[in-house]
Amino acid sequence: MRIALHQTRAAGLDALDRAAREAAARGARLLLTPELSLTGYALADPAGSAQQNDGPAAQAVSRIALRHGVAVGYGYPERGEDGAVHNTARLVGPDGEALANYRKTHLYGSYEAEHYTPGSHLVVQARLAGLTFGLLICYDVEFPEAVRAHALAGTDVLLVPTALMCPYDAVATTLVPARAVESQLYVAYANRVGREGEFDFAGRSCLAAPDGTVPARADGVSQALLVADADPAFLRASRERNPYLADRRPELYPA
Amino acid sequence: MRIALHQTRAAGLDALDRAAREAAARGARLLLTPELSLTGYALADPAGSAQQNDGPAAQAVSRIALRHGVAVGYGYPERGEDGAVHNTARLVGPDGEALANYRKTHLYGSYEAEHYTPGSHLVVQARLAGLTFGLLICYDVEFPEAVRAHALAGTDVLLVPTALMCPYDAVATTLVPARAVESQLYVAYANRVGREGEFDFAGRSCLAAPDGTVPARADGVSQALLVADADPAFLRASRERNPYLADRRPELYPA
Repeated sequence: MRIALHQTRAAGLDALDRAAREAAARGARLLLTPELSLTGYALADPAGSAQQNDGPAAQAVSRIALRHGVAVGYGYPERGEDGAVHNTARLVGPDGEALANYRKTHLYGSYEAEHYTPGSHLVVQARLAGLTFGLLICYDVEFPEAVRAHALAGTDVLLVPTALMCPYDAVATTLVPARAVESQLYVAYANRVGREGEFDFAGRSCLAAPDGTVPARADGVSQALLVADADPAFLRASRERNPYLADRRPELYPA
Repeated sequence: MRIALHQTRAAGLDALDRAAREAAARGARLLLTPELSLTGYALADPAGSAQQNDGPAAQAVSRIALRHGVAVGYGYPERGEDGAVHNTARLVGPDGEALANYRKTHLYGSYEAEHYTPGSHLVVQARLAGLTFGLLICYDVEFPEAVRAHALAGTDVLLVPTALMCPYDAVATTLVPARAVESQLYVAYANRVGREGEFDFAGRSCLAAPDGTVPARADGVSQALLVADADPAFLRASRERNPYLADRRPELYPA
């Protein structure tokens, strides 16, 4: 299952369309883009850009996925049914079908707390090409509990649109590979790069494998479309060698 | 608070005495040695070597600590009050006083399961020099839940005697630094090195800091006495910048 990760300074549907074309041309079946990739991260008024999960932007993404025959994971400010604004990641299948919609549960810092309502569902999954995909967003993945919840629910590949800032490179280089090892799954981590308003993004997008290796890694400054494979057979074998889930002692862990 | 980590092929009281002397001479106030450092890891019959936590070996370690004025964290096969044999880590103060006794809760593989009874208390702590120390052993630290439990209970420096085997270097190089970052504490990880029976140990002992850096790191083949500082002021500042514990969403995590 070939996955493309878009590390970019750009935002919006045109950038997404170009990335999806290139991803498909390079054999990827899924394209992952950064947090809030439809609008950019540094919005003065996220509520003003927010759309429903089946709004015009969502429909445009479905057309892009269908046009290139590639699944698309992307981020956008979502207007919920109750009017609340969420920092959301959405996954669309290669036929344009809506597969999953996840609202960030761990908001980062005062900017996000001011503008977004945190989600209340941690584990959102979708089946695609025989694998179970899950969605988390940026700060979420820094919490081992969030990734563990996915592993216990059967997620094989965790898709993580992110907007990781400097100087927190250790999140991309240390925490993300650790998540893949300790919870025995693939983690796809697609970051922004460059400066946007007051934010300076750290790049270092990657696909991290369950043996601690990193089949694809971008640098901290360049735009890139990374392509790498999530291998179901490798994942199965790794889980047999590393029975972390079976060896847990949940009765000893604090509630 | 200067900590010495003994990465060694040796085992036993003489090796411990020499390491404690060198640790004290280099300004360390605490010496950490590998898992089962009093006996070696590859015991044909751990029960035959097991002693109570105040037995002759424990008393000898207290004399070593007192002689050199350095706290000592070490591992030994423990004979419990009910006769069960545990894989245990013990911490003795610089005055020889018993501070903590921790029985490994996550046993690794069939060899350990055959010979040891898992512990039933996850968080064992002791105060020393104004810091809260905790004990885990080897495989324990690979579980983020175990380290999180320590962080929630206020552990500042986690002492982890280990017997990590090849080819699992990613535990030392990726998981251990990740634990320090995600739970905002220091992790001291002292490994064996070289071959013992069927086991080939991976070295790479380290002190990992809460910002993702590794102030001290041994290689994968050499014996070494590493010395590095756990800095309470740095830890406090890091926790203010990284409020992971406050930002958790425990109501969303699986029990």
